[in-house]
Amino acid sequence: MGNEAVGTEVAPAECCTPVVGRGLDEAEAVELAELFKALADPARLRALSLVANAPAGEMCACDLVEPLERSQPTVSHHLSLLVESGFLTREKRGRWAWYQLVPERLDLVRQALGVSGP
Amino acid sequence: MGNEAVGTEVAPAECCTPVVGRGLDEAEAVELAELFKALADPARLRALSLVANAPAGEMCACDLVEPLERSQPTVSHHLSLLVESGFLTREKRGRWAWYQLVPERLDLVRQALGVSGP
Repeated sequence: MGNEAVGTEVAPAECCTPVVGRGLDEAEAVELAELFKALADPARLRALSLVANAPAGEMCACDLVEPLERSQPTVSHHLSLLVESGFLTREKRGRWAWYQLVPERLDLVRQALGVSGP
Repeated sequence: MGNEAVGTEVAPAECCTPVVGRGLDEAEAVELAELFKALADPARLRALSLVANAPAGEMCACDLVEPLERSQPTVSHHLSLLVESGFLTREKRGRWAWYQLVPERLDLVRQALGVSGP
């Protein structure tokens, strides 16, 4: 997990082997499960949704506390997890951190769920 | 969660509000997080993958124990969670239960992750 990073972070490299297509091995499944764990929390999903829909394309942590109805440390914790799992990037500017969505990361998860067609 | 159901089960009704598009409210986020929780486990992802790729389009619980390298009760537990969350259907035939993928359920999760384009 590590410390709070400063500056813009980059999403991890490409991921993950699709569920549909061939059998996932254990290592692939562990990697993919980690991504789903990052999404398996209502506060994190709402934070992701708020940032994704921010008119300016980014959102300050300071503006997420009220809509998420969680304490500032809790919100920071969830935002850190979303950055670590590559769904958000964080940029420190002055006192606050600003968050942007990494839409490619959501695309990767969608691809990992495979396609229902042939 | 309830008891083990007998016979073919039907996936829950449509779900979920997309992450990208507008802000998720708390109830919507809770519903969607439950789906991700069901996927946030390596054994469940591998079970889903094995069933999804089964040449016959279905797989007996008895044939999942060995490739998953988990005990039979553990495998049954994971399969039940996947049925309850609508990713698999179960059909009892004689002594064993047979599982089929519900591809529409994976599609719903993919849709809930939104699209990166406009």
